[in-house]
Amino acid sequence: MGYSDVDRLAINTIRVLAVDATFTANSGHPGAPMGLAPTAHVLFNKFMDFNPKNPKWLNRDRFVLSNGHGCMLHYALLHLFGYAVSIDDLKNFRKVDSITPGHPEAHDTPGIEVTTGPLGQGFSNAVGLAIAQAHTASVFNKPGFDLVSNYTYCIFGDGCAMEGIASEAASSAGHLQLGNLICIYDDNHISIDGDTACAFTEDVLKRFEAYGWHTQWVEDGDHDLEGIEAALEKAREVKDKPSVIKVTTTIGFGSKLQGTGGVHGNPLKADDCQAVKQKFGFDPEQSFVVPQGVYNLYHKRATEGAAKEQEWNQLLEKYGQEYKNEHADFTRRLAGDLPEGWEKNLPTYKPSDPAVASRKLSETVLTKIYQVIPELIGGSADLTGSNLTRWKDAVDFQPPSTKLGDWSGRYIRFGVREHAMAAIMNGLAAYGTIIPYGGTFLNFVSYAAGAVRLSSLSRVRTIMVATHDSIGLGEDGPTHQPVETLAHFRALPNMMVWRPADGNETSAAYYVALTSKHTPSIIALSRQNLPQLEGSTIENAVKGGYVLHEAENADITLISTGSEVGICVDAVKYLKEHHKITARVVSIPCFEIFDAQSKEYRLKCLPDGIPSLSVEVMSTLGWERYAHEQFGLNRFGASGPYKDVYKKFEFTPEGISTRAIATVDFYKGFKPRSPINRAFQQLI
Amino acid sequence: MGYSDVDRLAINTIRVLAVDATFTANSGHPGAPMGLAPTAHVLFNKFMDFNPKNPKWLNRDRFVLSNGHGCMLHYALLHLFGYAVSIDDLKNFRKVDSITPGHPEAHDTPGIEVTTGPLGQGFSNAVGLAIAQAHTASVFNKPGFDLVSNYTYCIFGDGCAMEGIASEAASSAGHLQLGNLICIYDDNHISIDGDTACAFTEDVLKRFEAYGWHTQWVEDGDHDLEGIEAALEKAREVKDKPSVIKVTTTIGFGSKLQGTGGVHGNPLKADDCQAVKQKFGFDPEQSFVVPQGVYNLYHKRATEGAAKEQEWNQLLEKYGQEYKNEHADFTRRLAGDLPEGWEKNLPTYKPSDPAVASRKLSETVLTKIYQVIPELIGGSADLTGSNLTRWKDAVDFQPPSTKLGDWSGRYIRFGVREHAMAAIMNGLAAYGTIIPYGGTFLNFVSYAAGAVRLSSLSRVRTIMVATHDSIGLGEDGPTHQPVETLAHFRALPNMMVWRPADGNETSAAYYVALTSKHTPSIIALSRQNLPQLEGSTIENAVKGGYVLHEAENADITLISTGSEVGICVDAVKYLKEHHKITARVVSIPCFEIFDAQSKEYRLKCLPDGIPSLSVEVMSTLGWERYAHEQFGLNRFGASGPYKDVYKKFEFTPEGISTRAIATVDFYKGFKPRSPINRAFQQLI
Ligand SMILES: [Ca+2]
Ligand SMILES: [Ca+2]
Repeated sequence: MGYSDVDRLAINTIRVLAVDATFTANSGHPGAPMGLAPTAHVLFNKFMDFNPKNPKWLNRDRFVLSNGHGCMLHYALLHLFGYAVSIDDLKNFRKVDSITPGHPEAHDTPGIEVTTGPLGQGFSNAVGLAIAQAHTASVFNKPGFDLVSNYTYCIFGDGCAMEGIASEAASSAGHLQLGNLICIYDDNHISIDGDTACAFTEDVLKRFEAYGWHTQWVEDGDHDLEGIEAALEKAREVKDKPSVIKVTTTIGFGSKLQGTGGVHGNPLKADDCQAVKQKFGFDPEQSFVVPQGVYNLYHKRATEGAAKEQEWNQLLEKYGQEYKNEHADFTRRLAGDLPEGWEKNLPTYKPSDPAVASRKLSETVLTKIYQVIPELIGGSADLTGSNLTRWKDAVDFQPPSTKLGDWSGRYIRFGVREHAMAAIMNGLAAYGTIIPYGGTFLNFVSYAAGAVRLSSLSRVRTIMVATHDSIGLGEDGPTHQPVETLAHFRALPNMMVWRPADGNETSAAYYVALTSKHTPSIIALSRQNLPQLEGSTIENAVKGGYVLHEAENADITLISTGSEVGICVDAVKYLKEHHKITARVVSIPCFEIFDAQSKEYRLKCLPDGIPSLSVEVMSTLGWERYAHEQFGLNRFGASGPYKDVYKKFEFTPEGISTRAIATVDFYKGFKPRSPINRAFQQLI
Repeated sequence: MGYSDVDRLAINTIRVLAVDATFTANSGHPGAPMGLAPTAHVLFNKFMDFNPKNPKWLNRDRFVLSNGHGCMLHYALLHLFGYAVSIDDLKNFRKVDSITPGHPEAHDTPGIEVTTGPLGQGFSNAVGLAIAQAHTASVFNKPGFDLVSNYTYCIFGDGCAMEGIASEAASSAGHLQLGNLICIYDDNHISIDGDTACAFTEDVLKRFEAYGWHTQWVEDGDHDLEGIEAALEKAREVKDKPSVIKVTTTIGFGSKLQGTGGVHGNPLKADDCQAVKQKFGFDPEQSFVVPQGVYNLYHKRATEGAAKEQEWNQLLEKYGQEYKNEHADFTRRLAGDLPEGWEKNLPTYKPSDPAVASRKLSETVLTKIYQVIPELIGGSADLTGSNLTRWKDAVDFQPPSTKLGDWSGRYIRFGVREHAMAAIMNGLAAYGTIIPYGGTFLNFVSYAAGAVRLSSLSRVRTIMVATHDSIGLGEDGPTHQPVETLAHFRALPNMMVWRPADGNETSAAYYVALTSKHTPSIIALSRQNLPQLEGSTIENAVKGGYVLHEAENADITLISTGSEVGICVDAVKYLKEHHKITARVVSIPCFEIFDAQSKEYRLKCLPDGIPSLSVEVMSTLGWERYAHEQFGLNRFGASGPYKDVYKKFEFTPEGISTRAIATVDFYKGFKPRSPINRAFQQLI
């Protein structure tokens, strides 16, 4: 222990940088950085191991600022410790195309682990990072080779504490006894509406105790550096529980408005900026000043971190000599590459193979590939038997004391916690050694929308196994039957929404999902059986869309996905037999991937001159992009055996034919342009 | 107290009906009804006041089955007590077009208060119902007139307890000291993945204590009817805290598989059905049998309830004599009608009025109407100063002991709890005397998607005030800038998504939202200032879409919403001056309402022969429905001052013009059909 003036100078430098950056941006949140600077100083300078020159060093300690609006705290630290975040980057805080956006984005800024700001997400990501560490350590560590030993630290505020996602994640972390997770609750009694007394009067530590966490309280987080250090030290010693340390701080410490909502989300006024600087011994006329002593202090710590990485690299090399296979697996994972030839394990199907529900086809894929892709770690939000996300011999990821599994287990029991599951998956993916998947009903991916959005934004490889994907789930009824969900996630940038029609398309969905390092996927899967289709192949389906059934001089193109493709194939026969209409069928299991194909290819699928009709038991919203006319379900579904429900809404060969005939009639004597032909390209 | 054989017979009748209905449906969840029958029997027969002949009697006790999959429990009770749920309805459980769907839907079944099944929703609805009761009582009760005095009872299971939304709602309820709320936690140690030991090992009662709840535990919920009764009695006596009673039960009590996951989500096998019946003294060969003694018992209770309503009606009549105005207001509210002439208070604007952010315009609407619509109760998920959801003199809805407001207060501090907020709003709306609104950023309506979906499905009048509706929020950056959100909710059936362009359109959005008794609304509002537009009127905008700027012999129609409409108006000038292109402008603030207009009207807005271009800084998904070409943002936004962000993505008069010219060129020599003309009508 022992803190001196240079520590206090460093703390005040962080505060003043946050004041300067938000003032210059004329926007942002100075309060949290000013209140949290002492805690962050102790944490970064006394506890965390990291090398600013290699922010991707695997065994670095992870730091997550869950209250991401306080990101000037983190940006300031990154700059001061010598990450590739310059003082000019701080000056460009919240400016277009800077690496210091208004909330931290992992792909933008070296040293940012996960994308935070939407409250509760970072906390839940931290749980994922801690799970990843525990699992990776269990798989790779050997006697004398403590290769994976990092801690995950997370700061969260009142806002995160109020969000349900964080409650879910905290309950999971407690159950999982994640001793490597240390969270700091910034107890400053202020949220945007003012004093937390107006809406948030629960006993947070008692709640965490109820979850099974180790809890501590530092009463004076503004000054008691020793107390912060002692609490962190104690938390590190607790190995069988996650730890939370409530640190009571003064938001905007040093400002005239300290301790009030006035410093939460607005820059300080000019005179207050000056007063703060004066108070902390800075020149009130100058901005973005860093005393050399502060750089020296922090660079020293950074140098120690670099040396630790150096040591670790040597350990890894030695490990490679003793454990050749493990070393190869470890380094391959770090590169994000899959084992060579893994894709040979993907099952393929012939039309003569039996009809199978695509959720079951998904189970078969997992069963065939889990041994060749050891980094595939998955689970379900308490729907294992419905999602079919667990291969037969899977071991649960559980604390060994539960006797229900162990740390090397690859199956996670997420509980009924969809939102936390998706955010934990983001954390798992961010760690660097895991490809996570998680199961729930497609309808309840909506519960996880906040986290799924961040999968896309932060460009992580996560896979949502979303079964029971339509009214085809039958009896559970409208409360469980998605109608709007595909449109929702199709509109989300950098998200692959797959809805495979059969076995080969299911294999293709997994192929693309697993090989897309920077794009998450949602794979929508049926509860009901689907026939294996003539014309479907993995090679076709990996293009996102293809001609399943071609016909010369076709009168119409039927475009469909998932369980409706097979019905379209039946409709082709029906149309020919009963109406002498020739139809072709295009399957588009994934818009995002189909859109990425050449225009020439897409026009081959959806040529000029032939009217087209989309068929999908969902909202038609968005189908106008591909089809001239749309047959869908722009209303809620119904509870009943699925065949009755399909019949009620006329998703039958006859029902499709009726719409196809109307479409052919409508375009009679008129050769419509393909919707693929557009006047201009979209900005990307 | 004192329970006899007829009580046990009633309990077993409920169990057997649940067994029969799920067996007949070959689908459903017998386990929870069988385990909960004793608790439900005591609750319904000893505590709850209701009149099956008038399920809408205002002062009835409310019952919510949050674990809605156990709905055969509730359907059986409704039948047995004499609601309009026949034995044939039970036989049609989970059949198409029955009133007994797979999960309870409030609009389908008399006696169902709220739509549950998606876990955690019902619990949160119950909090809303309890808030509504406390508020309504405070407003209308007078000395000697305890007009509004009902309790809200809610049963929830492990699944609900794990969901974050329920944690949020529980924390709110504890803060609000809702003494009228009594929740029963069905502690049966089973969820779909099996024993809760695998994922859910927290101390639930301790967690609720931390929230400020009164807690009790009934250890033998299978047999201890006296214990259940005593706990409910005690809970009713606690007036300053919500109560939770943990009742430990055996899931599937009576089945061979009782206490296991095997009875959770699957009907019993035929032999098990028979064994259960034998065990409970029923004829194993017969199904759907109700002993007359059970009908007699429950009908007696129902008669008592009817008498209580009769008494209450007399009280209400007397109240009407003493409190004429309050009585008129009360009965008007119950009818769901707004006060006559209220709409005269909606502000209107002229083009010469200053530019104002639409979130501010929304604040003006609330400020102008709150006095004439006393049933309007709102709040924000901790973004009051940003959402501008609070009129100046609003009183907070708070327990008086907090000294921050009182029960009559009309402004709710929801805390950072978007999902619970939306579900609480559903409960508030379901109560019958309140029109609720709630504020958050549009991006964080996604956190609430699960509950928002149920607003639509259950046809309640709720209003989501969704500010910061686009990249126009600027510096907060991509983590906060919605791109996919409008597409998501436009695809949701029975949801009005409004994105007003100026003051008159904002007034129109509120007009339609408030007068649509069975349709919820999301009103997307800008952070940045918007000009008052020439051509916008309330009368135009209530049609959901209209010609804002007409032009003869137009070369192109620009179609837009919200903040981009004004930029389109500028683009019209730019196109004329620089390119001699004549453009007209159509504003479509609400798809759902525009689609409901006559085809003739819609074709007048979007006529044949003129190419059209949509302009909206969001995903283009769905715009193909109205526009031949689409200018949008199919990527994430950027952090920076909003004008810089708009410029980066070319949402400027020049940028729009570039796309408009490309569109005109593309359709040169070709008169495109209006997208309004379709080959066939969608099923509704
Ligand atoms: Ca705070
Ligand atoms: Ca349970």
